[in-house]
Amino acid sequence: MSSATTPIRFGIIGCAEIARKVSRAISLSPNATLLAVGSRSIDKAQKFISDNGLPSSTIPLAPYDAVLDHPSVDAVYVPLPTSLHVTWAVAAAKKGKHVLLEKPTALCVEELDVILEACRENRVQFMDSTMWMHHPRTEKMGELISDTTHFGEVKTVDSIFTFMADEDFLQNDIRVKPDLDALGALGDAGWYCIRSILWANSYQLPKTAVALRAPIKNNAGVIIACGAQLLWADGRSATLNCSFLAHLTMQMTVIGTKGALHVTDFIIPYEEEKGSFTFVSDAGFTELVTGWVPVPSKHEVTADLPQEARMVREFSRLVKLIKEEGKEPETKWPEITRKTQLVIDAVKKSVDNGFEPVDIIG
Amino acid sequence: MSSATTPIRFGIIGCAEIARKVSRAISLSPNATLLAVGSRSIDKAQKFISDNGLPSSTIPLAPYDAVLDHPSVDAVYVPLPTSLHVTWAVAAAKKGKHVLLEKPTALCVEELDVILEACRENRVQFMDSTMWMHHPRTEKMGELISDTTHFGEVKTVDSIFTFMADEDFLQNDIRVKPDLDALGALGDAGWYCIRSILWANSYQLPKTAVALRAPIKNNAGVIIACGAQLLWADGRSATLNCSFLAHLTMQMTVIGTKGALHVTDFIIPYEEEKGSFTFVSDAGFTELVTGWVPVPSKHEVTADLPQEARMVREFSRLVKLIKEEGKEPETKWPEITRKTQLVIDAVKKSVDNGFEPVDIIG
Repeated sequence: MSSATTPIRFGIIGCAEIARKVSRAISLSPNATLLAVGSRSIDKAQKFISDNGLPSSTIPLAPYDAVLDHPSVDAVYVPLPTSLHVTWAVAAAKKGKHVLLEKPTALCVEELDVILEACRENRVQFMDSTMWMHHPRTEKMGELISDTTHFGEVKTVDSIFTFMADEDFLQNDIRVKPDLDALGALGDAGWYCIRSILWANSYQLPKTAVALRAPIKNNAGVIIACGAQLLWADGRSATLNCSFLAHLTMQMTVIGTKGALHVTDFIIPYEEEKGSFTFVSDAGFTELVTGWVPVPSKHEVTADLPQEARMVREFSRLVKLIKEEGKEPETKWPEITRKTQLVIDAVKKSVDNGFEPVDIIG
Repeated sequence: MSSATTPIRFGIIGCAEIARKVSRAISLSPNATLLAVGSRSIDKAQKFISDNGLPSSTIPLAPYDAVLDHPSVDAVYVPLPTSLHVTWAVAAAKKGKHVLLEKPTALCVEELDVILEACRENRVQFMDSTMWMHHPRTEKMGELISDTTHFGEVKTVDSIFTFMADEDFLQNDIRVKPDLDALGALGDAGWYCIRSILWANSYQLPKTAVALRAPIKNNAGVIIACGAQLLWADGRSATLNCSFLAHLTMQMTVIGTKGALHVTDFIIPYEEEKGSFTFVSDAGFTELVTGWVPVPSKHEVTADLPQEARMVREFSRLVKLIKEEGKEPETKWPEITRKTQLVIDAVKKSVDNGFEPVDIIG
């Protein structure tokens, strides 16, 4: 195979539920292939390969180290519980494997910095697995809110991600366990809200985070619902609301001085093939204030590949540039990961300190 | 005319901009007629009648008292600045005139109570002019969120009303003047958010209001942007965001345990003839979490009359029951006005006391 057609060879570390979706995404991405699946036992790895109809050439490996030691693995996808991220992401980087890491990326920014430093030192690409970032709709929405003529300047963002977890989830899922995903709903659902708010604000960090009152924690002290307000020095603000205890909702509203953008399925589009949103610019009312002029217009963006396959394709593209052309890793992705984690940490701190404002220092 | 066809005869007190819309609504309502327009001068009243194409039979009156003294006026619509409401609403009630009062209804609940007491004592109907309450869409949405099988219990409400005021508004509108509409954006835009939150919670008062940080006040100390969180003892919560400094947005999201409702033009529908919203119940994801099942469905509700004409029709229906059948005034409307005002007051207090929680006592 010529280098142009040599796919990036992935190993998956851990057979989490989400790995099923990403293994399909790797198969769908034209510049990637799934080489190996690593689990704590060969049987589990083999079962994952069979159950998900992966090619029989996919290699089952155990334990996780076997994936990192496999000489043909270029990159790893790590969907392990968050508390294990620092161990395995660092180990992967040290073995020269590029790292696609599930979110939340770490329990705190200090841990994340260990991961990012290991990636830098070993010149491997880092990217977090925030799939919606890679939907072409996101690019289109970004163009519209960057258009100062029609959108003006961002004033406020409101972002909500809730879903109604069932009793089994609330008792047993890793996202409610203090030793596995201690950030709970904030790290899981809140991650997306915070990323969307940063995205809408050109990744400028807010100055301050203030948790909303009445967050809900489970008996083990893990957040299962919370909210926060984020504030910038220039007067911009944002609110986020994340919960495991309310029906599925994933909406983002970005309001500027001259326009507004609204999307109600920003994390997982209603349908895989396309994504829509509404945008309105310079709206006012009819003469007697009996209707809007203009009304918001609906935009629909077709995805050539599912957003998670586009993510794998972009990650693999960057890995190929490093591997085949000697380029440096793209710094944009770890930078926005780190900003997201900084805001997560500040919200968590404000939840824990009685809703006092917490400064965010980049 | 038989009593069944005798319309309720309105007098308008004050030629505010919003009175143009309501005078048309009175004309459109089958059980109401506009008898008189009162202003500070006859010339102004006559100009309002001419400029708005009202029937030449409409009587120009001055000053405002002349409307209250006119023996044929059954009811008054009062769009005066909020600081004048207590004076003129009480005067109207004392003259036996039924009162349709523009929002915000008063500067504080103590003032409102003076108005409501005068209406009770004089057995006149009171209603605030919150038009969207009367759209048939509102009734349909209310049915859906009351359906515990498909919506479950309300968990959270997020309500936003912002518009971008121009420089003239920010300098000269009554809503930025401490002596006229001292509640500013909270009383104007926030009124709708608070009403929508109460509506979605079956008008159960929240226990506590906490203002969000960084409200914006003008040089005269009037709020021109603010937000708040409302909390109920059983864990329900809501957020509201109102502003004169961001592009037009009027959205409400009500999230229950089993469903979610979403509307993006709840105050002024995009088009006068109909209103839409989306509702989804028991949504989950496709097997690989690549789409929603089911996706939210769009509901469209046709309005037989514009919502403000439906408001006038309902108000006039109640007035006729009192006038012609000896019924007592309907207490629902003053009760929900008072609850709205109580929450407004609590948010204002929390804005002013450094974002401390303020208990709401009904």
